[in-house]
Amino acid sequence: MKNFATDLQHKIDTKTKPIGSLGVLETIAFKIGNIQQTTAPVLSKPAILIFAGDHGIVNAEPVSPFPQEVTTQMVFNFLQGGAAINVFCKQNNIDLKIIDAGVNFDFNNVPNLINAKINKGTKNYSIEPAMSIDDCNKAILKGKEIVTKQFSEGTNVIGFGEMGIGNTSSAALLMSLITKLPIKNCVGKGTGFSPEGVRAKKAILKKAKNNHQQTEDPMEILAIFGGYEIAMMVGAFLQAAKLNMVILVDGFIVTSALLVAQAIDKTILNNCIFSHCSNEQGHFKMLEFLKADTVLNLGLRLGEGTGVALVYPIVQAAVNFLNQMANFESAEVTNTKY
Amino acid sequence: MKNFATDLQHKIDTKTKPIGSLGVLETIAFKIGNIQQTTAPVLSKPAILIFAGDHGIVNAEPVSPFPQEVTTQMVFNFLQGGAAINVFCKQNNIDLKIIDAGVNFDFNNVPNLINAKINKGTKNYSIEPAMSIDDCNKAILKGKEIVTKQFSEGTNVIGFGEMGIGNTSSAALLMSLITKLPIKNCVGKGTGFSPEGVRAKKAILKKAKNNHQQTEDPMEILAIFGGYEIAMMVGAFLQAAKLNMVILVDGFIVTSALLVAQAIDKTILNNCIFSHCSNEQGHFKMLEFLKADTVLNLGLRLGEGTGVALVYPIVQAAVNFLNQMANFESAEVTNTKY
Repeated sequence: MKNFATDLQHKIDTKTKPIGSLGVLETIAFKIGNIQQTTAPVLSKPAILIFAGDHGIVNAEPVSPFPQEVTTQMVFNFLQGGAAINVFCKQNNIDLKIIDAGVNFDFNNVPNLINAKINKGTKNYSIEPAMSIDDCNKAILKGKEIVTKQFSEGTNVIGFGEMGIGNTSSAALLMSLITKLPIKNCVGKGTGFSPEGVRAKKAILKKAKNNHQQTEDPMEILAIFGGYEIAMMVGAFLQAAKLNMVILVDGFIVTSALLVAQAIDKTILNNCIFSHCSNEQGHFKMLEFLKADTVLNLGLRLGEGTGVALVYPIVQAAVNFLNQMANFESAEVTNTKY
Repeated sequence: MKNFATDLQHKIDTKTKPIGSLGVLETIAFKIGNIQQTTAPVLSKPAILIFAGDHGIVNAEPVSPFPQEVTTQMVFNFLQGGAAINVFCKQNNIDLKIIDAGVNFDFNNVPNLINAKINKGTKNYSIEPAMSIDDCNKAILKGKEIVTKQFSEGTNVIGFGEMGIGNTSSAALLMSLITKLPIKNCVGKGTGFSPEGVRAKKAILKKAKNNHQQTEDPMEILAIFGGYEIAMMVGAFLQAAKLNMVILVDGFIVTSALLVAQAIDKTILNNCIFSHCSNEQGHFKMLEFLKADTVLNLGLRLGEGTGVALVYPIVQAAVNFLNQMANFESAEVTNTKY
């Protein structure tokens, strides 16, 4: 029996270029070939799913400089094509879907919005669990269903984005519980807090963390401190890996969902390519925890899946060089003397 | 009179995103708006020009693991569409032109190859200057002409690539003379030397450097140690800046041409965006010398302009967000409370 990994590496190494000279692109090409178990991988119908949800804590504590209604307003902005993620998806021919996972607004069948609402926002986890275990499970199941539908439409490469005022706070708490790092290492300036804002946010989240029974169960952690958009992404990650899709991982909040998902099933990391390192300080430490290298480092801290949309042409380039470049033999180029 | 820079920054800051959250893309958008002196910049007909040339030293000293004929073979590979740069330009709709600046081969009107040959390779600078000042000037002039022609075809964003077995050696010498760093800091493994190969290369280049009168004149430095492809790129940089194009700078060898060009006219740096930091160790130090930040860091060390081709979608995304995103007012999104 032939060794598939050797064949794939041989194909990469005999392209008309010095060995290793395409750097990270060679790593990506190898990874995608390995996921699809072919030396001629194909990316089809790339898609980004944006999950939106609101957070009860936002109306009780100053954890974000933006008011809660911005979640709803941004959902409309996505639907009207005015957000950064719309611009980048349009440019790079990426299918974009917007999902109401738990926004605090009655959208009443707004066209093009996928209705997966579990509740109108989470509860305030300073006082009580954000979600019931039952609602959390419902969200995970919905995330799985939505990914399965996208897969049935022909998508084999996917990324997730999110919108939810206050969700860097949930992400920081999930991170702290999963990685066991103290809160202060997990909290950053989010959408743009001042140093005083960040200090206050740290104090609020530390207190919230201590108000609950400590647990190591990822589902319990998710239900207590998560959001509906995050729980839905946990389901989405699990299902995308189960369907053996190539998964492009975005920034801080999306990676917090991945932290939970990989605590449930570690093998999903085999399908993940980490698009970028966010400027939100905790993201770097999440990536360290996951032993993950990122492709881009553009100082982004916007969310929405923008890192995925921006990395996509580079991921496509990795697949394209593997499929389209000549090799030394076919191009009649002499290989190294040594 | 209104302050243009303030208007441009205001447009960036009122897009529906937290201030600064698009990171490097905001810097690029500002830079391009500033180059074009408009808050609605346009990138038209992106182009990469690959200049190819041979180096006399290659046949006398072991400065490359590849034999000289690979330059010619790779020119044919470019023309047949089999190289990495072909694949990436095709993917990203970049116009690609191949220029014979001084390859050691009679191409005899091969279709689609731009004939700008000054000589069939340089002389061996271990013994004598690579080019006469006259030939060096001819190469610079040719580079300027070729860029002017590309501009007349509608291109306002341009990058350069190169092919020339042995040209990391020329680049290292130019770097050492312009930056005044010792040779050992300027020499790397090039296309893939072993540690012993790198040691030998350092010794050869140190000796070559000492065999010539030390000069600070960039034209003299270029003539003594350059290559025809590098001299042509010096002219190309100077002319692209004169025509106020957006210039995307590739890796180690291209940046060595820029080092010479900016020593002639420092203002050209205003038009430059540095696409990537190469894995060739000297490149990082060149970038430090130029106080340049790069967009990508993908561990590339291939040349051909591949860094430019790969960064282009991100540069385009910067312009697109500036032109296409909604602002807080038009999208009716509430801005920060603080």
